[in-house]
Order: sequence, then structure tokens, then C-alpha cells
Amino acid sequence: MIEDVQAHVRDLARRAKASAAKLALASSATKDAALRAMAEGLLKNAARLKEANAEDVAEAEKAGISAAMIDRLRLTDKRIAAMADGLRQVAALPDPVGAIIGGTVRPNGLRITKVRVPLGVIVVIYESRPNVTADAAGLCMKAGNGVVLRGGKEAIRSNTAIWRVLQEGLAAVGLPADAIGLVETTDRAAIDALATAEGLVDVVMPRGGEGLIRHIAEIAKVPVIKHYKGVCHVYVDAAADLAMAQAICFNAKCQRPAVCNAMETMLVHRAIAPRFLPPMCKQFAEAGVELRGCERTREIVPGLKLATEDDWYAEYLDLILAVRVVDTTEAAIEHIERYGSNHSDAIVTTDLREAEKFTQGVNSAAVFVNASTRFTDGYEFGMGAEIGISTDKLHARGPMGLEELTTYKYVVYGNGQVRI
Amino acid sequence: MIEDVQAHVRDLARRAKASAAKLALASSATKDAALRAMAEGLLKNAARLKEANAEDVAEAEKAGISAAMIDRLRLTDKRIAAMADGLRQVAALPDPVGAIIGGTVRPNGLRITKVRVPLGVIVVIYESRPNVTADAAGLCMKAGNGVVLRGGKEAIRSNTAIWRVLQEGLAAVGLPADAIGLVETTDRAAIDALATAEGLVDVVMPRGGEGLIRHIAEIAKVPVIKHYKGVCHVYVDAAADLAMAQAICFNAKCQRPAVCNAMETMLVHRAIAPRFLPPMCKQFAEAGVELRGCERTREIVPGLKLATEDDWYAEYLDLILAVRVVDTTEAAIEHIERYGSNHSDAIVTTDLREAEKFTQGVNSAAVFVNASTRFTDGYEFGMGAEIGISTDKLHARGPMGLEELTTYKYVVYGNGQVRI
Repeated sequence: MIEDVQAHVRDLARRAKASAAKLALASSATKDAALRAMAEGLLKNAARLKEANAEDVAEAEKAGISAAMIDRLRLTDKRIAAMADGLRQVAALPDPVGAIIGGTVRPNGLRITKVRVPLGVIVVIYESRPNVTADAAGLCMKAGNGVVLRGGKEAIRSNTAIWRVLQEGLAAVGLPADAIGLVETTDRAAIDALATAEGLVDVVMPRGGEGLIRHIAEIAKVPVIKHYKGVCHVYVDAAADLAMAQAICFNAKCQRPAVCNAMETMLVHRAIAPRFLPPMCKQFAEAGVELRGCERTREIVPGLKLATEDDWYAEYLDLILAVRVVDTTEAAIEHIERYGSNHSDAIVTTDLREAEKFTQGVNSAAVFVNASTRFTDGYEFGMGAEIGISTDKLHARGPMGLEELTTYKYVVYGNGQVRI
Repeated sequence: MIEDVQAHVRDLARRAKASAAKLALASSATKDAALRAMAEGLLKNAARLKEANAEDVAEAEKAGISAAMIDRLRLTDKRIAAMADGLRQVAALPDPVGAIIGGTVRPNGLRITKVRVPLGVIVVIYESRPNVTADAAGLCMKAGNGVVLRGGKEAIRSNTAIWRVLQEGLAAVGLPADAIGLVETTDRAAIDALATAEGLVDVVMPRGGEGLIRHIAEIAKVPVIKHYKGVCHVYVDAAADLAMAQAICFNAKCQRPAVCNAMETMLVHRAIAPRFLPPMCKQFAEAGVELRGCERTREIVPGLKLATEDDWYAEYLDLILAVRVVDTTEAAIEHIERYGSNHSDAIVTTDLREAEKFTQGVNSAAVFVNASTRFTDGYEFGMGAEIGISTDKLHARGPMGLEELTTYKYVVYGNGQVRI
């Protein structure tokens, strides 16, 4: 039982900071060996992990938590193997630290290089799935950072068990175990203490529900990179290949409706709406998607529920879709800029002018032409793995991989230059 | 007289945001024409500007403000010409917006490009020098951003007069004048209103005194990039070329002592201290530098004032220097990491091993080998101009030029890809 939450959290951050200074200088080989040791440790300790997880699950069932939530919480041999695989994949990625990402020789002979260095101490705040403990720790550590993890209340025993194994992996190769810290209390005061630990924490990354993220943004005194909601759109232009448009829209809505890059509103140009909407809506209805249309949509597809103003803002994360008929690409852009969340938006068109209008006018982290919004993802973008998808504009936007977990410094060599 | 500061500021930000959407799509040619029109406007309206400035200066003299402050405040023909030149130089720089800064073709054929886009609305909060009004507005505008300026109370008339000319320059080429806003009240509540204007402001950049920056960091709800203090060091290693070391240290302290990249503490390896310190201290004394030494420094150069713990933390911004003898490069690094501000630090050495130890171990925005710390500057780094020097780690570190005033988005072209 931890009584002084503030002291516990600051102690974790302080130790992570001291360890990060060592981690920043560790070789790629050592860090990768630690990641592989962690992966082996997870597999070897599967029984211990499942035991701790069973207690979490039992508690959750007693508390009457939803079946979907309990499924997210549960650790199985397959999920433990996937965590171990994830760590091995991170070990196989190139080390971002030390990379020279820019440079110039000045007229006075100064040789200026811009070199990637770790951010320092990263706090990751997340919700129920315990695999985030291993995923987030592995990525932060590989990028040379100390990390303090604060997982969901309902997964505390599972997270703690995983964390112990990760620390053993660091210790096994001679790296400081304190580089990975975990908040050992479910007291929500820990979140506030982390978000206000100026001088100890370099950035807080909240992943989770709207309430959590809003709260952290509200109280934080250290920089925050939000992993916020996705109100994503697909706009089917007058010049769209309609079969392609139907396949993309269906994928964007139905392939995994509960994630942030799934489509929430479909915009359809009025010229093709009468041909496009009936078969599209039929396919959605057959897949169990509830449709909420504007008046013009309902003229074409009778019997749909009427969409309200709130529907245009909604992130359903479910088999529900808002549908609107628009007059022009400009009107589609206007709708997206007004109601969207600048996450991921797509146009389906064969007209290059409309495609360029859309990619320039839509100010989202990812703008797609003729592809599903579901591709906004670190792995799909070729980053190898991601810690999440930033909905902020500063530092990192969209999927955040290893490079986005670093900053840079300028290293300048001269031979006696002074400023005149 | 503005009564509702909150409403005034939010209105400025809202108009800057609406204008920024247009600016983001403006061509480089149009933006550059606006910059040149602004430059011409400043020269043509020099009389008007000097008139407004004379009122500010008279008020400042009445208020008993220091002569140094009044000098910073004063606009002369030469300074107006320098502002105009600055804007023309920004016009001549390459446009960062639209640059493709990364890209990949994925196995499934998706063509992913990472494209520079403006940040949105930037708030710049600064103190007395009125030239910042033109410099900051020009850079933000060229990078496609809306900007809201909040200058020092004592320069309000000068800033307002400059701002009107800048708006005329935008209007002359058909760009929205509201893209550059200026807070027309000296009420400090405006600062708080700007720093909490979530959804309207994308980033706040405070430049100025410690109190101002601390206050903004404390209350801000929007991201802040701090332009904070520089407690900069030069470490003279055992293997230094002593003549070079003396020239670098003298330059770093005396060339312009009131700026953030000037040296505040000099660290000297014990092996060369007896040879290095006497001539170095003599040169400093002749230049009127007050020296405060550690015990070992005072053994070598008797009569110096004793440095206290506070001196190691001090940013003098004046002809005062703390001096300490250290045993090793490691001890120098430890001192810098403990007392420094991670701004700019230098080593003078001919030993490559010590140089590498230092560049790796010192976690500052700029780390120099055999050059003066005074080179941390956008122009000296080849960026052409700078809006300031970030002392933060997120988004931008060190000198911030046009590129650092942008973010990016992913533009992805496919031919019907869906996620499996």
C-alpha cells in the first residue's frame, strides 16, 4: 500500500531520469540484447503472468465489467507470445539514437551536425490492455529513454508482473532496471503527479478515453502529446471509381470499427449519390451497420435514421455511420475541417485536380487518395512499430515510431572560431 | 480602451486562424511579395513609426526606466532600415511549406509522403524591442502561419504602428490582413487569455525574462515552446591549445555579454589551470569582467571573489564570470549537467577522445568543440533567420528558423488499397 503517491511517483521519475542518462550512452547491441532478454523472460514466466492476470480478471468480473473489456484485459499464451514477438521486432529495428539527420559546413569552417538523441523521461498513461506495458516500455527504451508507465486500474497485477520481467531483462545485460518504472498504485492522484513533475519528466503521452486525455491536458505542466480521437471521413467524389469507393468505405467502417482510424462519416458527391448510395447502404445494412443520413441521403435511401448535428461530431467506435451528400469537393473539405478531428481522411476520385484540392485543403495528420483511412498506423507506414498515433501538431503527428521518441542536439566542430 | 480582454484576444486568434487557412495555400511568390511590400511600407512610414516610438520613449523616460532599456526601445532610421532588410531576407529564403521531407512506397503499393505544412496559429510574447514585431510576424507568415503578437507594455505604440504597416503589406498583395494580429492592450490578462485559447492557438512562444516564461509555462493550456535562459559553459581541457582557449573564452564572455549564448561559467582542467588562468584572468580583468572563482582558482589567481553555490546557477547576462577548476572532463560534464540550462556548452581540446566524451555526455541544444558558444544562432547555423532559441526538447531545440515553424502531414496515394 503506497501512502504518499506524490513521493512514490517523483521517486520513480527521478530514478528513470538517472537511468536514462546511462541508457542514452548504451550501445544498440546492449539495448537489443535487453529487449531479447525481456522477450524470453515473458515466455519463461508465462505461468506467473497468467496467474497475476487471473486475479485481475476475477476482480473485473466481480466488479461487473463488460465482457468486451474483460476480453481486452485477458492474457493468454498467444497474447504473451505476441508481446515477446513485439519486443523482438523492436530489437530488429534500426536504433534512432546517434543518427545524423542534418548538417552543414559554414563559410567560417564550422561543421554543424544535427544528431538524434533520446527525449529523456517519457510517461505513458494507458488503459486496460496489459500488452501496452511491454510495447511502450520496449519502444521508449530502444530510443534511449527512461519511461514511467501508468496502466489501467483493472490491469494493475498483470502490468506489475510484466514490468518485473522487463526490469529483469534490463538487469540481465547490465542496464539500470530503474529505466523502466511502473506506478504501483491505482490512485488517480498518480496521474496528476506525473503530469506536473517538471524537471523530471520530459513528455507525457496519454492514450485512452476522452475524459482521461482532457483531464491530463487540463492539469499538465510538462509537455503532452495527445493520442486523441479520430473522427475520420471518406469522401466519394463525382469522379470516383464506384466499385473502389465501395470497397474502401466498407473497409474503413467495418474492418475494425472500434479503432481511431475507422471511418465515422461518409461524404458523397451529389452527382454520383443516386448510383453509389443504394448498393453501398445495402452492403452496410447487411453487415449490421446503423446508418444515419442527411435529408438528401434519405431521399435516395428511404427509411434511414436522420443524422443530427451531433452525429457529424461523433466518434462512434462502433457499427454506426453518418452519411452526408455534398455538392462539391470544397463542401466536403469544409465539412471535414469543421466537424473532423484532423486524424485521417480520404478521398476516392480519378480526377487529379480534386485529389490535389483535397490533400491540400484537408489539414489532417494523414490524408489519403484512393485508400482506406485504416492505414494510419506505424506498421503500415513502415515505422516497424508505434507507441500510438499523435493527434497533436507539435513534435510528432500521426503514427509515432522510434524516431518520434527522440529529439536532437547540434554538435558543432570548429578550430578556434569566435564570433565577430 | 479595450474592456473585455478575453474577447479581444479570442477574436484576434479566431481571425488569425481563419486567415491562416488561406495563408497555408498561398504561393511562395505571393507571400514573398507581401514581405517586400511590408519592407517598403516600413521605410515609407518611417516618420509615422518614429512619432509613435517617441511617445513610447517619452512615457518610458517619465516612468524612470533604465537608459539601457530605453535604448532597446528606441527606433531610429537605421533600425527601421534593419527591420525592412530583415523582411527582405526572409522573402529571399526558401519556402518551407510543401517540402517533401520523407516518403516511402509500401509493399502494397501505397505511396506515402511526409509533407511540411504550417503549424496554424502561433502566439509570440516578447518584451521591449519593437523590431521583434516585424521579425516574428515575417517569419511566421512566410511559414504559412497566422500569428498573434503580444509585445512589451512600454513599446505598445511603436508595435501598433509597425503592425499596421505589416497588415497593409498583406492587404497589398491580396492576403488577409488578419493573418497578423497584435494585442492592443497592455493588460497582462491578455497573456493568460492567449495561453489558454485551446482550439484557436497552436503554440505559444514566450521570449523574455524568467518570470514571464515561468508564468506562461505554469498557466498554459496550449503547447509552449520556451525561449529560456542560457547558463553556458566553456570547458578548457588539459589538452587544449591555450591560445585558442583564451580567444574562445574571451569571445564567449565579452563579445555580447547580455545574450543567452554568452558564457556564464568557465571550467578549467587542473593540469593546465596554473598556466592558463593567470593570463586569461588578466585579460578578463582588463575588459572589466568581475571574476568569481572556486577555492582552487583563487589559489592560482589570488584576490578573486569566492564563488558561491548560487554563482554556478547564475545567468549573469553581464560582465561577470564564475570560474572553477575541475579534475577531469567527466567532472566538467557533471558540473554542466547539474548547474547548466542545456543551452550551449563548449569544450576546447586537441584530444578527440575528450571531445567525443564531451559531445556525448553534455545534453545541451548545442555542444561545441573548439568554437565559441556565441555561435548558437539561426543565422550562424545557416537557417537565414530565427524566431528565437528553444530551450525545450519537444518539436524544436536550439535556433528556430522557418522549418521549425512548420509541422507535417502524411499524404498517401493508393489505387484502391484496403486493410486486411
